[in-house]
Order: sequence, then C-alpha cells, then structure tokens
Amino acid sequence: MKNELYIQNSLTRQKELFQPITDGFIGMYVCGPTVYSDVHIGNCRTFVSFDVIYRYLMHLGYQVRYVRNITDVGHLTDEGEDKMSKGAKLAKLEPMEVAQKYTVGFHDMMKIFNTLPPSIEPRATGHIIEQIDMVQQIIDNGLAYEANGSVYFDTIKFAEEQKVYGQLSGRKIDDLLVETRDNLKNQSEKKHPSDFAIWMRASDDHILRWNSPWSVGFPGWHLECSAMSTKYLGKTFDINGGGNDLKFPHHENEVAQNHGACGCKPANYWVHTNMLEMNGRKMSKSDGNTITPEQLFTGDSPHITKAYSPMVVKFFMLQAHYGSTLDITDKGLQDAEKGYRRLMEANILLQKMEATNGSASELDTEINDLMDKAFQQMSDDFNTPMAMARLFELVSKINSLSAGHLSNNDITNETVDRLKSTFNTFIYDIFGLLDEEIGTGGRNGIADGLMQLIIELRQSARTNKDWGTSDKIRDSLKELEIQVKDGKEGTTWSKS
Amino acid sequence: MKNELYIQNSLTRQKELFQPITDGFIGMYVCGPTVYSDVHIGNCRTFVSFDVIYRYLMHLGYQVRYVRNITDVGHLTDEGEDKMSKGAKLAKLEPMEVAQKYTVGFHDMMKIFNTLPPSIEPRATGHIIEQIDMVQQIIDNGLAYEANGSVYFDTIKFAEEQKVYGQLSGRKIDDLLVETRDNLKNQSEKKHPSDFAIWMRASDDHILRWNSPWSVGFPGWHLECSAMSTKYLGKTFDINGGGNDLKFPHHENEVAQNHGACGCKPANYWVHTNMLEMNGRKMSKSDGNTITPEQLFTGDSPHITKAYSPMVVKFFMLQAHYGSTLDITDKGLQDAEKGYRRLMEANILLQKMEATNGSASELDTEINDLMDKAFQQMSDDFNTPMAMARLFELVSKINSLSAGHLSNNDITNETVDRLKSTFNTFIYDIFGLLDEEIGTGGRNGIADGLMQLIIELRQSARTNKDWGTSDKIRDSLKELEIQVKDGKEGTTWSKS
Repeated sequence: MKNELYIQNSLTRQKELFQPITDGFIGMYVCGPTVYSDVHIGNCRTFVSFDVIYRYLMHLGYQVRYVRNITDVGHLTDEGEDKMSKGAKLAKLEPMEVAQKYTVGFHDMMKIFNTLPPSIEPRATGHIIEQIDMVQQIIDNGLAYEANGSVYFDTIKFAEEQKVYGQLSGRKIDDLLVETRDNLKNQSEKKHPSDFAIWMRASDDHILRWNSPWSVGFPGWHLECSAMSTKYLGKTFDINGGGNDLKFPHHENEVAQNHGACGCKPANYWVHTNMLEMNGRKMSKSDGNTITPEQLFTGDSPHITKAYSPMVVKFFMLQAHYGSTLDITDKGLQDAEKGYRRLMEANILLQKMEATNGSASELDTEINDLMDKAFQQMSDDFNTPMAMARLFELVSKINSLSAGHLSNNDITNETVDRLKSTFNTFIYDIFGLLDEEIGTGGRNGIADGLMQLIIELRQSARTNKDWGTSDKIRDSLKELEIQVKDGKEGTTWSKS
Repeated sequence: MKNELYIQNSLTRQKELFQPITDGFIGMYVCGPTVYSDVHIGNCRTFVSFDVIYRYLMHLGYQVRYVRNITDVGHLTDEGEDKMSKGAKLAKLEPMEVAQKYTVGFHDMMKIFNTLPPSIEPRATGHIIEQIDMVQQIIDNGLAYEANGSVYFDTIKFAEEQKVYGQLSGRKIDDLLVETRDNLKNQSEKKHPSDFAIWMRASDDHILRWNSPWSVGFPGWHLECSAMSTKYLGKTFDINGGGNDLKFPHHENEVAQNHGACGCKPANYWVHTNMLEMNGRKMSKSDGNTITPEQLFTGDSPHITKAYSPMVVKFFMLQAHYGSTLDITDKGLQDAEKGYRRLMEANILLQKMEATNGSASELDTEINDLMDKAFQQMSDDFNTPMAMARLFELVSKINSLSAGHLSNNDITNETVDRLKSTFNTFIYDIFGLLDEEIGTGGRNGIADGLMQLIIELRQSARTNKDWGTSDKIRDSLKELEIQVKDGKEGTTWSKS
C-alpha cells in the first residue's frame, strides 16, 4: 500500500485510518439509482465521486468488490405509493419497461462520464427471496411484527435493545420518533409512528407484487440494500456509500435492519457525498433553479452561456471535495474548461518530453515532493481538489520546462519518467478523464491524423509566404472551433 | 400496416401470414445470452437478426414489447453442473461478478453493432419466485414429480396427454426419449431418461442457491424463459425466437413447460436464426476454425487478411437471410466492405440531390417499383438480402443520375423525395447501420470538417499547379487510409 488511507466516516463523524476487514480486499456498497426517471446531475456527481474512490482504492493495490444496486421496486414515496409503479402508470407501460428504459439511460450516462461499471449491479426485483428471508430473520429476532399482511420494523424495541438507532444520522431517538417521512402512513397498523415497513401488502391494483408468507406484496425500500449488501459482501463489510440525502431514513434504517437480522453493523465506514447547488441556491425543479446533464452538454439552458463537454463537467466535479457542497455556475464551468485543457495539453507536452540527462537539483526535489503530496492528499479522504492543485503546480513546471524557462539540466531522467507516469495515472486511471479532441498525441485517431496534415500544410504555406492558404486554414479552423498552439515540443491542437 | 407480413414459423414449418393477438401490438421474446463468457460471433448474428426484425416490426407501425433475457443461472451442462458457477469457480469470483462482467461486455458489443436495447431485459436470477411458482403449477397439474429435492418434468405423461411434445423440433417422441442431452444425469431420480429437471437440489458446494418448497437449489435452465415470457408477455404471445441450436431441447421443453403450467402454447410464431460457418466448415474452437468479433474488428486472425469494421460485419450478416447458414470468408467480408461503402456513398449523393422538376417516365416507374419491392421483400420473412439487392439496383440509378448518365428530367420531385426517405429508412431505421467515417455529409463532426478543408486545399493546390502540396495531401491521406472520390454532386471521402 503506497499511503495510509484516511476516510471521513459518517458513522463516527471522524476521519479515521482505513483498515480493511481482509488484507488486500475491500467490499464497497453504494446505493444506486431508482430507475423511474432520467438520472439527474446530483446522482451523476455521487457516482462520479464513488468511481474515483473505486479507482483510487484499486490504484492503492486493493482488490475491490464494488456493488452498486439498481432500485427497480420498493421506493416508497410520501403518498405511500411505489415510485416505480407510479411512473409505470403514467407512462402506461409495464413497470419493467420503465425500469429498462431508465437503466439503459443511466448506463449510457455513466459511460459518457467514463465511470467504470461496478463489479456487481444487483436489482431489487432480483432479490425478493433474499429480502423475504431477511424479513423473516428480523421477525424471528423479535424486532418486527406483522399487521394486516404488512411487516413493520419495531423501532422502539430496537432503540431500547440496541443503542445504535440514530447513530448514523446523528438524530436523537426522540426526534426520530416524530420525524420519519412515512410517519403518517398506515398509522393504524403500526405500533408507533416511527416504525417503518419492511414488507408491504399490495393493494389490488398494485402491479409489482410477489408471494410471501405474509401477503402478496413487495419489500420496503430500505430492505433491498440490507439484503443485497449482505448477500454479495457479507454481514459486515468495509465501505457503504451514497448521497447525503440517503443518511436518513434510508441508511439509518438499513443499519437497523442489519442489526435486527444479523446482530451486527453492515459497514465499518460510511461515506456520504454532498449535494449540488446552482448559483448558490439549492437546486429545485419548482423554481427553475435546475439543470440536466444533457443541458450542460448542449448549452440549452438559461443558466449557462455555452455547452460544456462531459469531461469538462467531470473535471468541474473533481475540483470540489466529494464531502463539500458543489455550486454549479457558468463561471465555474468556464474555469473548469480552461483547467481541463491546460491539464491535458500539459500532459501531451510532458509525454513528448525527451530524456534530459539532467542531475538532481532543487527543482528536481520540488517536482518529486509535489508528486508525493498529490498522492498523500488523495489518501487523505480522496481529496481530489487538493491533489489537482498539486498537479497544476506541476503543470506550471512542465510548461516552463517546455518553453525553456526552466532548464532540463536540472531534472533527472528518473524524475521525468516518474512525472510522465504520475500524470497518466492521475488523469486516466484515478480521475478517469478522457482526451476530448485534444491533439497532437491524444487518442483521436483520424481527426488527429488530419490535423497533423493541416498543421504541416500551414507550416509550408507560411514558409512559402502563401498567405492566402495560411489565412484559409486559420479561418476554417476558427470556424471548426479548433485552437492550434505552437510550442517547443511541437504544435498541439484542441477543440472548444 | 404497409404490407402484409409473412413469417416462416418453425412450429408449423410453413411461411404464414402474420396475425398479431392484439391489433397493433406485438409481444416478442428472444432467448438472450448466457453470461459466463464473451459473446461469440454466432450470438451476434442472432441478436443482429432479431434487432432488424424488431426494427422492421416497428417500421410497420406495431408497438412491440421485445423481451430478451440474460441467463445468469441454471444453464445445465453435460456434466450436470451449472455453467455460471462453473465459470465462477475457474475465475475464483462471485458468480454475479462473472455475470456482470460478461453482461457489460455483451451490452458493449450490442452497442458496437448498433442494435437497440430490448424493451425488457429480465435476468434468470431475478425471477426465482416466478420459476418456483411455475414448478408448483406443473406439479399441481400432475406433469412433474419431486425426487430427492429435485423436480422433474414428466415427459412420458405429457407426451401421452398432450400431443405436442416434439412438434417444434420435429423429433419423433421415441427418438426424444433417448436423445436428450441430459439423459444420463440423475438417472436414478428420474422416472424416464427423457424427463428433465425444472428444479435442482444444490449440492453443498453449489454457490448459486435459493430456498424452495423442495430443496435449497436452483431452477432448471429451460424454466426461466417459460416463467419470464409468461410474466412479461402473457401466457400466449406473438413471437418467440432464438438460435437454431436452441430448438431442442431448450425450446421444445419451454413449450412443454408452458403447456404443463398454463395449458396453452407460449408463442404463435417461432422464429429461428441459422448457424455460422467459416470457410465452408462448422465453426469449432477445437480445430481452430473460429473467429471472435474482436478479431474481425482488429484483423488479428489467420482467417482474414485485414480488419473489418463493425458496420461492415453487420452489413455482411444482412446479406444472408437470417434462416440461412452464413459462411464467413475473407472474400465475403471484402465484398461486404465494398458493398457497405457503395451503399453509404450513394446515399450521400442521393441526399444532396436537388429537386429535379422532371416528369414521370419509365425510369420513374422503375425506381418506384424497386422501392415497393424492397419493402415487399422485407415483409416476406424479413428477407434482408433480397431487399438489399433492390437497394443496390437503386444505387446504380443514383450513381447514373449523379454522373449524368441518366437524366434528372425523367424523375419527379416526389420520386426523389421518396427515394431519399426510403434510403434513410432502410439504412438507419431498419438495418440500423451507422456512418463509419464516410463523408462528406456523414455525421462525423470534426473529421468531416477537417476533410472539407483538406479537399479545398487540394483543389486550390491543383488549380495553382502546386504539385508538391497536392502530392503531400495525396500521400498523407493514403497513409491515413482515406479515399477521396470526386463526383458531380461534390467530393466524398471514406476510410478503410
């Protein structure tokens, strides 16, 4: 392991040294999307954050089993309806058709952001038996009761017996007992308003339904994550993550269910990503202060002045720590666009840099220290903005070396090689960024080949003082929004 | 509906007029991949074929619910082992990790071939309850029996009671009784060798296992398709499809299970795609007469002389009827490459064709007849090679019109418009082909913009008799494997 890893643990509210249950292996569960509508930009931020965490854990040498579920049933809304069947009724489709449509859309979006698929992607509807088994275990342990075909988790008894209810969300038990979001539902069946359903009897017109020992019905929303994480990662595993908004009631109840069924906590470390804002305010559909990923990519929104590519949006996300609120602004995105290009262009120059045969110097030490720090800061609770800041200090060095303002004689071949590998590791392996029509040296195939030809034609036109041709090239490239940049290591190009 | 549709029905061995159960709607089930290894080229052909069928049914105006499953459990091998858990043991992975890896790979491959995702993509492991329910129904109907925790379908009783066993595969019942592939397994538990498992008791080390009324075990392979098609499409639906190799025992047993559980046949029309050969012989791993999709795309195989793009391979597939054997040869692929380019280039010329203000003539009638025929032939059991042949007769007309060998005065504006829309409909909507770096007028964005500039620079170099520059352009494009073609409607380009 290259660095000791520290993680901000929501369960203890402390930054803790990470210690895996099994040396060299990590089990990580992340609450995935509910597939009844298009994935929103807040979800994207959460899954991009956990993708970087997943990638970094693998970079540290761990073998990671990353489980991220698809919620295709059982998400109870305030109206006591199942979100999936609600969506299905609106669209007049079979619920699984709705789930498929938005699952495909979600996967496409995750690919656009170049995130890795998780190791296992279990579906809630695919684990009804496991959920029924878990309900039975909780009943057997005396912590749930059946009423009218539904089964409720007995929060009062659990809170009395095991002093952990409220620990994760930091809520006091008395507050919990009045605050739960479904405290007005099925009031008459519950022993106490804070009790929550782990199995729901289906009404006659409810289309998602399965046989169970208690009724034809469906599992409560919180149950699926308890059942699926236990199945694929064991009763206690390393990391459980999700968006901040899931802390309560979802994760709090997940913890309760696992204690109730298995007698132990599900995860040692709980990691929560923070929310998005736009222009300093909470994103909200009702007052129009919202933006979709597609709008960001096309520029079709009153909140932004232009389109931003997926990699620019991803870069923008990485410039905030996952645990901090991220404020989307047009200015912030413009800066991210410049930053992304600056980083990628510097890497192209760097990868072309030849052996220096220089010797160790103050500069050499400085460059190595910056690289060390970048990794240390990633190991300090996955601090992407701090690590990125170190990379940009290195970008300045690279540009100065390339322009001849710093001397190649002052850095060793080993340092150049380490710098090359560090940049590729951070850009491609850890951050998961892609080249987006940035040449020369990028991975664009044909466009890059054509640009090489055009750059040569431009050069020979200039040499021959054929201003007509060089003007023609300049104007056409401008029209195509392509910028060409001449430097010591050759000419590079990029596209707006 | 534009044409009456005829389908070759494997169940009756006749080409029949297609009549949907519900006007305007079609339910279609296709047996999907077993995700324990990379998808092979034969699977790709099957799913490309059904994608074209799906697209054509939608083109005809039907609302199609297309269900294609993922088999992630229950495929019994000759050794009586479950293929999924076998793969998992080899890879030392959780079976669902193996399933996820190959599901993602399968989806990526389907995207490379530009097939549409099905409406619903159910997983076998996601429908254990439904399978258990179906086993119970078959037992209740007296057509299955339990032995030592496993449940077997009683083929003898079924064959006696309902005279349909063997109908689909065309096998005689006496042959069936000795021929089944698992006739030597669990011999002692079965009443007769031809009986097949619909529920299997899991041995202690079997990792895929669920509670059931009979044992902790797993469903028989054939059962999942019966249970999932019934759930999503109803007891009897319109079309059930798959590869020819699935006819027996898989589909024959599926029919038996549906009759046994629901008392009726599952599908009205059974459609089977035929097998692939290579160089006139059966593809076979053991004698090296095999090729993977990746090898086709990279050219890294002793059986081919160069790489073929996914669209060329897809075009090659469409040049045979889905019901015919398709023989993969290097020559055939080379011809397909030429054909694909010829078709796409003609369409670029066509879409640029201006209003003719011509009048109806023999040529005009001929063009309209060819278009009518192309659609009629697609409606004749989805005959892609015949429809394609009509398109190529039209390509000749388009090229002749473009070169001035046929006169624009002989075709009306309406015909030109219909021709444009017919070509786009066939190429993009029905065949699902994509532009692959074919310009100008393609959908390639930046590469196309750069090629436009290069073509202009080439033109002005020629005009100025600047042979140095025009040679430089010619050589560079050759190196990039780009062909430029000058025509009356402008210059187009394509890439090898």
